[in-house]
Amino acid sequence: MRESQRVFRERLPKPSDFTDSLLIYDRRLAKRWGSWIRRFPRSYAVTSGEDLKDLRRFPAHVEKILKKTEGLSPAKLTIVAFGGGSVGDFAGFLASVFKRGVDLVQIPSTWLAAIDSAHGGKTALNAGRAKNQVGTFYPARQVILVREVLLDLGRDRFLDAWPEAVKVALLSGTKDLVPLLNSQTPRGLWDLLPRLIEAKLRIVRRDPLEKKGIRHLLNFGHTVGHLIEAETGMSHGLAIGYGLSFAMVWSEKREGLRAEEWIEACGLPSGRQLAKVLGRLKQARSLISQDKKIFSTGRVRFVFLRAPGRPLIESVGIDEIVGEIRRQGAL
Amino acid sequence: MRESQRVFRERLPKPSDFTDSLLIYDRRLAKRWGSWIRRFPRSYAVTSGEDLKDLRRFPAHVEKILKKTEGLSPAKLTIVAFGGGSVGDFAGFLASVFKRGVDLVQIPSTWLAAIDSAHGGKTALNAGRAKNQVGTFYPARQVILVREVLLDLGRDRFLDAWPEAVKVALLSGTKDLVPLLNSQTPRGLWDLLPRLIEAKLRIVRRDPLEKKGIRHLLNFGHTVGHLIEAETGMSHGLAIGYGLSFAMVWSEKREGLRAEEWIEACGLPSGRQLAKVLGRLKQARSLISQDKKIFSTGRVRFVFLRAPGRPLIESVGIDEIVGEIRRQGAL
Repeated sequence: MRESQRVFRERLPKPSDFTDSLLIYDRRLAKRWGSWIRRFPRSYAVTSGEDLKDLRRFPAHVEKILKKTEGLSPAKLTIVAFGGGSVGDFAGFLASVFKRGVDLVQIPSTWLAAIDSAHGGKTALNAGRAKNQVGTFYPARQVILVREVLLDLGRDRFLDAWPEAVKVALLSGTKDLVPLLNSQTPRGLWDLLPRLIEAKLRIVRRDPLEKKGIRHLLNFGHTVGHLIEAETGMSHGLAIGYGLSFAMVWSEKREGLRAEEWIEACGLPSGRQLAKVLGRLKQARSLISQDKKIFSTGRVRFVFLRAPGRPLIESVGIDEIVGEIRRQGAL
Repeated sequence: MRESQRVFRERLPKPSDFTDSLLIYDRRLAKRWGSWIRRFPRSYAVTSGEDLKDLRRFPAHVEKILKKTEGLSPAKLTIVAFGGGSVGDFAGFLASVFKRGVDLVQIPSTWLAAIDSAHGGKTALNAGRAKNQVGTFYPARQVILVREVLLDLGRDRFLDAWPEAVKVALLSGTKDLVPLLNSQTPRGLWDLLPRLIEAKLRIVRRDPLEKKGIRHLLNFGHTVGHLIEAETGMSHGLAIGYGLSFAMVWSEKREGLRAEEWIEACGLPSGRQLAKVLGRLKQARSLISQDKKIFSTGRVRFVFLRAPGRPLIESVGIDEIVGEIRRQGAL
């Protein structure tokens, strides 16, 4: 699989750099970046969020985009995606199947997308009430990381992304983790961005099409994180924070990780905060069954951590997870 | 791009050869091959035709297929497609995006699919009233050609496929064309099937992702063939026959092809038959504009033929095509 070119820039690129392009952008960005957006001759505004990724809405989007791009050669068309994770997933999937695949450039507008979802080539839509059931592996030609966009974001966006940054650094080891923990600010995160992206891509490269199970390491914190996100409506980023704390507490019990120490150092939710959220999970069992990471009925591949840089994947029964949710919920 | 393995068999393969499979099949095949179909533990019946390829219907199919395959590992799931061109296009696209891509085996049940559409890795759905606007390049792991299935088909199916067989042979040259013309029977076509598929794949291999324009040669006869199909409701195969005659008559005028002679030898519609059909084309201009083969506004890449084995692609204006349709319609 081809790898995206990564470009770190101070400012947004010139719209005139992209000829024959269609800008797909989060309409919430129009207020702050409207003058830049309006310089694209063709643009398509979307509302970010899980509804954008609903497969049932996809046909109507395609029909509108067909009209917007009428008369352009598919061979020359570039889709420029400007938005967060859901916009990137949607625009990426669209680019991968539109006229059997057109050129794609991603400009992440959130820390979460800049650290994680814009890299590695995964695109996805939701179907049948479950996330990411449909998708492709389709790396953007270019992922453009823009300092003025990311540093303009509020603190909540930074906090939302923090768990994914921590996740990658925990998987990678103390060499990436310690500098991250020493600079828990947006400016610090910008400076570390190239290293964090590289840490993620080191895992992706060993298993680009998710065939060998290695890439599954990036699901660290996600099994229970997704449950929390689905059940509580919490943002993806914050939910992954809880999912990481859950996985680390479980890793203490099974693998001897010094969980409490690392959870605190990483600024993740404490055991007490976690217990409150876990107490609210009711449909855990049925939601886990729908998760596409299941590799045989009733079992899930769960990512544990022995120590920073030493993850391992273990097959666990759904009963075991549900039991551990109860145990940690009662702590 | 990986190439499909081609397997020529006397009889249908054992359903038990495919573990963890979902059979997607044309429900019209249930009468003749029902006992074989019922031996698959999971199957999904579809109604072949252009409606099956309607993107707006795709989400509902995905939701049903998610239920049918619940609990199966995406890494082990094989989609087995048993049907003609529309079933192959639908099932191929589905396999390419379902859980970001699952294993695919194609068993073409029509001559048209066996000669042409099952090979080369293209999958497609229709959107916004235009054909094949959405799709992927996703070669099946295996394409299984089954003699008992193809020789069981009626003469109309054979006649429907004949123009595509002739198209490939005309592009390839007299070495493939002459044996084809000498044996215009289903048995003869079965014996020549490996050579015809190989002739198509020789073109595909030079341009697997349709980036270089070479693969566009396979559109020989299709520009006007698609118009006739859309306007008259004629079957794809027969419409391509008319499209080939049109392209050959035009090639006589522009490139000196001995059109009448080859049209007659190939069993394609005569100039007189063609004139009748062309007279019925009213919306030619607007339909050509929607065709995704357009590479810049108002122009189309049209495949001409100097002689068998000597095709060439020329950029022609939509006006020129419409004018030539009028001219040949008046012959």
